Amino acid sequence: MIKIGVIGYGYWGPNIVRNLCAQQTFHVAAVCDQSPEALRRVQQTYPAIRTTANPSTITCSADLDAVAIVTPVWTHYELAKAALKNGKHVFVEKPFTSNTAQAEELIALADRNNLVIMVDHTFLFTGAVRKIRELIDARELGDIYYYDSLRVNLGMFQHDVNVVWDLAPHDLSIMEYLITDEPEAIAATGETHINGHEDVAFVTVFFPHRTIAHINVNWLSPVKVRTTLIGGEKKMIVWDDLEADEKIRVYDRGVRMDSALDRQKLLVSYRSGDMWAPRLEQVEALREEFNYFYDCIVKNQVPFNSGVAGWRIVRMIEAASRSMKLKGEPVLLNSTGTVTQEAKAA
Amino acid sequence: MIKIGVIGYGYWGPNIVRNLCAQQTFHVAAVCDQSPEALRRVQQTYPAIRTTANPSTITCSADLDAVAIVTPVWTHYELAKAALKNGKHVFVEKPFTSNTAQAEELIALADRNNLVIMVDHTFLFTGAVRKIRELIDARELGDIYYYDSLRVNLGMFQHDVNVVWDLAPHDLSIMEYLITDEPEAIAATGETHINGHEDVAFVTVFFPHRTIAHINVNWLSPVKVRTTLIGGEKKMIVWDDLEADEKIRVYDRGVRMDSALDRQKLLVSYRSGDMWAPRLEQVEALREEFNYFYDCIVKNQVPFNSGVAGWRIVRMIEAASRSMKLKGEPVLLNSTGTVTQEAKAA
Amino acid sequence: MIKIGVIGYGYWGPNIVRNLCAQQTFHVAAVCDQSPEALRRVQQTYPAIRTTANPSTITCSADLDAVAIVTPVWTHYELAKAALKNGKHVFVEKPFTSNTAQAEELIALADRNNLVIMVDHTFLFTGAVRKIRELIDARELGDIYYYDSLRVNLGMFQHDVNVVWDLAPHDLSIMEYLITDEPEAIAATGETHINGHEDVAFVTVFFPHRTIAHINVNWLSPVKVRTTLIGGEKKMIVWDDLEADEKIRVYDRGVRMDSALDRQKLLVSYRSGDMWAPRLEQVEALREEFNYFYDCIVKNQVPFNSGVAGWRIVRMIEAASRSMKLKGEPVLLNSTGTVTQEAKAA
Amino acid sequence: MIKIGVIGYGYWGPNIVRNLCAQQTFHVAAVCDQSPEALRRVQQTYPAIRTTANPSTITCSADLDAVAIVTPVWTHYELAKAALKNGKHVFVEKPFTSNTAQAEELIALADRNNLVIMVDHTFLFTGAVRKIRELIDARELGDIYYYDSLRVNLGMFQHDVNVVWDLAPHDLSIMEYLITDEPEAIAATGETHINGHEDVAFVTVFFPHRTIAHINVNWLSPVKVRTTLIGGEKKMIVWDDLEADEKIRVYDRGVRMDSALDRQKLLVSYRSGDMWAPRLEQVEALREEFNYFYDCIVKNQVPFNSGVAGWRIVRMIEAASRSMKLKGEPVLLNSTGTVTQEAKAA
Repeated sequence: MIKIGVIGYGYWGPNIVRNLCAQQTFHVAAVCDQSPEALRRVQQTYPAIRTTANPSTITCSADLDAVAIVTPVWTHYELAKAALKNGKHVFVEKPFTSNTAQAEELIALADRNNLVIMVDHTFLFTGAVRKIRELIDARELGDIYYYDSLRVNLGMFQHDVNVVWDLAPHDLSIMEYLITDEPEAIAATGETHINGHEDVAFVTVFFPHRTIAHINVNWLSPVKVRTTLIGGEKKMIVWDDLEADEKIRVYDRGVRMDSALDRQKLLVSYRSGDMWAPRLEQVEALREEFNYFYDCIVKNQVPFNSGVAGWRIVRMIEAASRSMKLKGEPVLLNSTGTVTQEAKAA
Repeated sequence: MIKIGVIGYGYWGPNIVRNLCAQQTFHVAAVCDQSPEALRRVQQTYPAIRTTANPSTITCSADLDAVAIVTPVWTHYELAKAALKNGKHVFVEKPFTSNTAQAEELIALADRNNLVIMVDHTFLFTGAVRKIRELIDARELGDIYYYDSLRVNLGMFQHDVNVVWDLAPHDLSIMEYLITDEPEAIAATGETHINGHEDVAFVTVFFPHRTIAHINVNWLSPVKVRTTLIGGEKKMIVWDDLEADEKIRVYDRGVRMDSALDRQKLLVSYRSGDMWAPRLEQVEALREEFNYFYDCIVKNQVPFNSGVAGWRIVRMIEAASRSMKLKGEPVLLNSTGTVTQEAKAA
Repeated sequence: MIKIGVIGYGYWGPNIVRNLCAQQTFHVAAVCDQSPEALRRVQQTYPAIRTTANPSTITCSADLDAVAIVTPVWTHYELAKAALKNGKHVFVEKPFTSNTAQAEELIALADRNNLVIMVDHTFLFTGAVRKIRELIDARELGDIYYYDSLRVNLGMFQHDVNVVWDLAPHDLSIMEYLITDEPEAIAATGETHINGHEDVAFVTVFFPHRTIAHINVNWLSPVKVRTTLIGGEKKMIVWDDLEADEKIRVYDRGVRMDSALDRQKLLVSYRSGDMWAPRLEQVEALREEFNYFYDCIVKNQVPFNSGVAGWRIVRMIEAASRSMKLKGEPVLLNSTGTVTQEAKAA
Repeated sequence: MIKIGVIGYGYWGPNIVRNLCAQQTFHVAAVCDQSPEALRRVQQTYPAIRTTANPSTITCSADLDAVAIVTPVWTHYELAKAALKNGKHVFVEKPFTSNTAQAEELIALADRNNLVIMVDHTFLFTGAVRKIRELIDARELGDIYYYDSLRVNLGMFQHDVNVVWDLAPHDLSIMEYLITDEPEAIAATGETHINGHEDVAFVTVFFPHRTIAHINVNWLSPVKVRTTLIGGEKKMIVWDDLEADEKIRVYDRGVRMDSALDRQKLLVSYRSGDMWAPRLEQVEALREEFNYFYDCIVKNQVPFNSGVAGWRIVRMIEAASRSMKLKGEPVLLNSTGTVTQEAKAA
């Protein structure tokens, strides 16, 4: 059984604690939060858990094997560094860090100490994303033409980051998980209306082999939308995450040029067949993720949502933020440095 | 009664002819098409209409007052030029021309001959767009934060233009009609999969005063979507053009910073009130447009969807196509030259 | 080529004429309507068709082989009788007649003169109904548990009949076509609010083998709904006729008792698998129906939507209307008399 | 502070306990359940609450003021009787009892002992139902023409009652709350497919003044639907309880006969105006209900969802079940006896 401490008991923290407590493999020994009210709620629900307002009580604790960091992004680096230095495995909220330099330092530190970093890209553990990945791996879609995601709602504004830092990590990590090619460049546009950070943003990610991804994130939408279109050469998917059932619809539709000669005559043929909504596994994603965290620790294995995976997302957010300042000018994702070496290994 | 000839009887032509025939103010004297089969259909439905395979029979006809050009975009310039030179008013499909130079020449020609050019931006005459404009004019939405449109479906591929030329004129013309500021720059990304032209494209239009517009057009979507979000300071609109009723929903929702000082403390307040779907006028848009065409001719008036309006759309499509080649680099919409002078006058 | 005359050019008549004109196998020689304005529209669109305000010009015409009767239900009997007496095949709008006695007389008359009666239950020729029938015939659904239809909208009120006569013929004919057992009894409830006829009605049809059908029709609904649930032992269908695509969704869902013993312990097991929306044939139903009418005439064949089928629907509407007067008391559908004999033969 | 014991910690019990614990006005002293596993969960979450497998520990406890009964319907009568005899106020799940005789006895017992019975018709405390009631009270809808509810899903089968006992209490209690007239009769049809009880049922409730209600409940539907149409003389409502926002849509639509004379000429006029989705209060219904329970106890007041209200629902379910056995024959709701006297007083 792995002894774990949790730092942060705000919006997402209670889910983390509840899920860890339900696992046979983890023992939640301590929870830290700045807010006395939060700690009071912990005590009421889990009288056996130690509470503290001081995070170093957890990062330096001698009797903990791992730390879950469920705090705002700007605190991740310091907390993770302290935990790793003290020999603890780290489970950390997305986005991993505030910049790539921090991420690289943490990855190196974990490497030296032979510790696991797992970044909480929860969506990768949902039945929906797993099913899409399965369909892509089975070549059901053929080549991927595009990945186009719409993730908009009203609020919740964050005071220190733009909407890409807040909402796009979901889409970027899913996109990365589904498209095996390495992204080459990012072009993004956006606008600032309320608090000095972009609250509306449109991010394009360029891949080799004519695959293109697009992510539309918005804190100022009157309605909540969570819809992704994935267009393939052979089949296409509409994923509506707000549907209770039938989140994923697979369309047997496509377009084909009949030969190079036809370009003049435009002999494009359309195929419009059945639609199919595969039943999805009813799993709780966090539960699956913690099982996997446990496995990676005990088997000394690098998770696919490792620090390096987290670094890749941060790198794309940095690039998108830079491109937005340049009103859409593309920013290359240079694949240099030791991190990428490691990425390939993972 | 205005005598009019129609060139082109393919996909959209029959609607044009049917609507013109239903007006008391127009007399359709002749229809031209290259296809004998199309002309046979004209004769069967309208035995009284003259048919011809030669467009100059129409553009040069002594007894016609006006010509409706309902052909592919690459033919617009030559046909419109011939018609204007022969003293005919011109109703022309969107997009107006293949490039801004052609548009400028036609505008000048119409000016010299005191003739009306009307570009068929039909959507501007729908109950939905009129209602949105009415709400914006009445300051119901307050300042416009963003205009975000999704117009995707499977096909119909065109062999000579990209998806922006095909689908975006609708959105660009509506956007232009609703947002009174002049657009400043365009950044667009896209990809080519089937026939050598971009079939997926994401276009951002930058306006002054932090208004941003975004248009997502795609010929490779498994499902048809026609949804536009318009976010305002005070209210927000969701326009779903595929809804039979309730195409427009107005949300009394918004976000507000309580003062400049609050940026640190993030005192953002949200307002979430009623939703309201105003009843829309049940008008046939083309019918309204032809009434307006008649009025502009007899009153010698410049329509708001004049050649200059058409030129503005072509200019934005050119800029978007150029930006796509540059992978998103923004292209300025320079507001120079006589055309813009005229635009202001109109 | 069959020479046909059409009586009635109101709401549905123009579709009938347009479709007959598009067939190679029919020649529309004459159209009759009481309204001069309707006849003017016929002349304008089809200058070659003879028009008349006198229906006997058509029913007694020496040069016509068939008559299509597209008038209000209370006129069907007289018009069809005249046509059949004069040796003409009859295509007649649903519901067939105002009562079963009239239907029986017409069926006998057609029989004696060896003529075809086809009742226009158009829905039976749609891709959706054909596909459902195909799935049922293939035993994909297993035993049918229930058929539950909702057909509601605002208006159009008819002054001489209740909402069951107006809207339920669609559902009753589809139900009859899909469920092969003979219905045994009908229980219906309803209420009258506006013009002295029931405008809201709920009709239950009892079948052998525990199959039950229910039809909810309503002229006073703020929204239009056209949804049918069909529950089977093995699979279940949701048919939403207002969907542009994917009208039919087949659910691999079911419930099963594990054995008779389990009733105490309630060992009910649920199966919840994939959903599947089969692509439907893109056919125009009326076109298919007229092809079939032609075939039945030239092959001297009794159509499945014959007068007898029409009589069955009228019999159910009569029973439902009677049950409504009795506030839901069930009315048996006695299967006696020559008509039923014939029905079995057909 | 009112000391309360809760009997039953299965599906709904945990919500009851959680809500009572969150109130300042109640103290949950004990929880009873037959299942050791359920009691273990209580202990884990609420270490301070006493647990027991013996219900009489609670119903006879000297230190409790009230009892919440959250068990299957067939146990309600015995448990409530014991509690009332021991001077405890009773909060009991719907449906109130297994038959009206039991309900009448409990009502009389509570009356004699001056105790409150509240039947948990939770829906009456939701923002949606409150808003509809408010609109009806303000005469926004005018006279109510019909109330038509669809409540279908797959399972959960209950082994001792039919689907009307399981699902219809929601609709019947809401209907009763919204329509002020007394229902006069019930006609219901249904069918039994799986476990010997009706799993599909269609219930019509007749009211004076041409108001009609209809409830469609089904355990064998492949999809979950919770939709109610309410048609009024002036406005109409669509309530979709599965919508996250905009559960209620008010349509400014209607039909009107212009005068008695017009019935011949059918001068029906339609009004089709705006749709409006009022913002609903974001209340937790159970919380509101317990506040009200507290108030009724301390103010010695008869709640509107009293035992008498519960009796009325049971009476309608009994009538519906009887009518189903008679294949739809209407069953009168005789308004005789002391209970109804009391009902009027309440």
